[in-house]
Amino acid sequence: MPRLITLLTDFGTADGYVGEMKGVLASLTPLTPVVDISHNVVPHDVEGARLALARYWRRFPEGTVHLVVVDPGVGSSRGALAASSEGRFFVGPDNGVLSPALLHGDARCVSIPIPSGAAPTFHGRDVFAPAAARLALGASLESLGDVAESPVIRRTPEATRREDGAVQGEVITVDRFGNAVTNLLAMRGGQVQVNGLTLALRRTYADAAEGEPLALVGSSGLVEIAVRDGSAAEKLGLRRGSGVVLLPRL
Amino acid sequence: MPRLITLLTDFGTADGYVGEMKGVLASLTPLTPVVDISHNVVPHDVEGARLALARYWRRFPEGTVHLVVVDPGVGSSRGALAASSEGRFFVGPDNGVLSPALLHGDARCVSIPIPSGAAPTFHGRDVFAPAAARLALGASLESLGDVAESPVIRRTPEATRREDGAVQGEVITVDRFGNAVTNLLAMRGGQVQVNGLTLALRRTYADAAEGEPLALVGSSGLVEIAVRDGSAAEKLGLRRGSGVVLLPRL
Amino acid sequence: MPRLITLLTDFGTADGYVGEMKGVLASLTPLTPVVDISHNVVPHDVEGARLALARYWRRFPEGTVHLVVVDPGVGSSRGALAASSEGRFFVGPDNGVLSPALLHGDARCVSIPIPSGAAPTFHGRDVFAPAAARLALGASLESLGDVAESPVIRRTPEATRREDGAVQGEVITVDRFGNAVTNLLAMRGGQVQVNGLTLALRRTYADAAEGEPLALVGSSGLVEIAVRDGSAAEKLGLRRGSGVVLLPRL
Repeated sequence: MPRLITLLTDFGTADGYVGEMKGVLASLTPLTPVVDISHNVVPHDVEGARLALARYWRRFPEGTVHLVVVDPGVGSSRGALAASSEGRFFVGPDNGVLSPALLHGDARCVSIPIPSGAAPTFHGRDVFAPAAARLALGASLESLGDVAESPVIRRTPEATRREDGAVQGEVITVDRFGNAVTNLLAMRGGQVQVNGLTLALRRTYADAAEGEPLALVGSSGLVEIAVRDGSAAEKLGLRRGSGVVLLPRL
Repeated sequence: MPRLITLLTDFGTADGYVGEMKGVLASLTPLTPVVDISHNVVPHDVEGARLALARYWRRFPEGTVHLVVVDPGVGSSRGALAASSEGRFFVGPDNGVLSPALLHGDARCVSIPIPSGAAPTFHGRDVFAPAAARLALGASLESLGDVAESPVIRRTPEATRREDGAVQGEVITVDRFGNAVTNLLAMRGGQVQVNGLTLALRRTYADAAEGEPLALVGSSGLVEIAVRDGSAAEKLGLRRGSGVVLLPRL
Repeated sequence: MPRLITLLTDFGTADGYVGEMKGVLASLTPLTPVVDISHNVVPHDVEGARLALARYWRRFPEGTVHLVVVDPGVGSSRGALAASSEGRFFVGPDNGVLSPALLHGDARCVSIPIPSGAAPTFHGRDVFAPAAARLALGASLESLGDVAESPVIRRTPEATRREDGAVQGEVITVDRFGNAVTNLLAMRGGQVQVNGLTLALRRTYADAAEGEPLALVGSSGLVEIAVRDGSAAEKLGLRRGSGVVLLPRL
């Protein structure tokens, strides 16, 4: 069974940077399929990439190599990581973007040395793609570098319980549809307060009237704010960090 | 010969939803190549996805599984379909997006049951991707569900012949270049009236001067309005539904 | 070893044109992996596509077929080319977009005849994809057409040395991050003048403070102007053609 390599970057595609990375991969491991996750992460948005990775990494089969390059600190003293977690592999900068994998109990993590010839502005091509290719070809994690003792970890901000029993949360990301995903964990029933509105939790988007705001439990188990056939972010002025409250059930 | 799975959605890529679908496919059918058609369909634009599918589905070899998820009604009572037509397979919501395939004489269509554990907001991941994987692995269409008796059909609006012999049509889509594709069938010679302009039918874009509007017969056999090295939609104020008239040849 | 086909266009993906091309490729050469480079080249930007191709073509292994369709002159008298250079193959319009390959010493180039049935607005589907498929299947370059004696060549504008020893260059492209890549060749140390600012050459983006402009030698060996965690193009008003001067080292 050939291993897959998945690819998540903020490079866009038109400039040819992703083309260069795919060329390196094709040269080093020509039989490994490369799966595009996205190259449209907002430039430098480590947090957005981390949340995307959290969604997909365990959906892929064991042995998959997840390559993630959203790397505003490229060429600085920030480290380069390879990791394994639950049978999948990960390669990317040590800036927290790989946290969804690193937080698991069996995660192992090594520090990839930066070769002297690597372009200080493009480790995706000169450091991370070659490391991913080696893992795809069956190299052991340990053969890529020494154990990384304390990789940078980013966590989703935690919601907090207020004295009145409500839970204070926030929007952690806005998706392409304008749905605002929060850090509030799913519960059955209940109501959500956001920007002065109180919204009952519905089952799906189509349970609201066209243009009507609603709250629901999204496909990753988190409460999200949506507008039927519209953008909740636009209509309700929501963005990452906007406050959202989950009211206790009466 | 491995079957291909093609993928058309309005999910964008940055949020990781497409990544989740690709992970499900890779887990269920790791040897099946997945071909990205697009994830940049305008959000909820069932009509745009239908027209795109109409363009490409028969270009792929028999056995290809076309997976289409533009699904504003996800989780509602709208059905889920698998279909076959001219040797290709199709999976997607029962909202008309699969019509180009369903309208063919030999088309067969079944209703995919929604498993109780499926997220009501993400059938792409929990219903459609697994069904596409099963078809790619060789499952029969009938094994996926009972015959769907009356799937939703969407049709391109028909042009109508006026009393004066001209044909009244409309713009059915505007492409990335700003070309306005109409529902007027190709004819040799002739003239097109649009927004007060009368345009002769040319052979190709380069037959007009830079910035000049023109009409031509596009690569799907339909009349389109273009501007050489520019956007006809912008310059002439055209969008889906704008009226266009094909004048009789004198 | 199966040959790869890479694909670079300005078609976007949502309209289904790329889907049609991929369908043609899958029908003619079903076992050849197709690698998306980009479909987001600015519409009609032959120059941008040429610069992207320059970046990636030699990163892919020998035998790769690079298919490039940015083709504002489609259907006109402009020619259609297939070429080989350094063991890689190339297919695209004769408008200069393939120059990075054609300029190499061992480059060979043939003229692909346009079949009478080809849509005059979509040679990507009807001319170039079939030619790329034939090359991927092992056809010789010469079997595709007669030698093309003088294909169109586009070159990056050359920087010029001024009387005072400084080098006058210009911005040749702006990337997704807003970095302005120039035609100034890398040198160690030195300073760059742009829009009234004098910038020391740094090693990488992170060597500047947040929001600070800097100059550096980019990953293709050319001087670029950047802003740490921001867009140099926006902040400094740079675009293709903007003047940039490299000062002599004192």
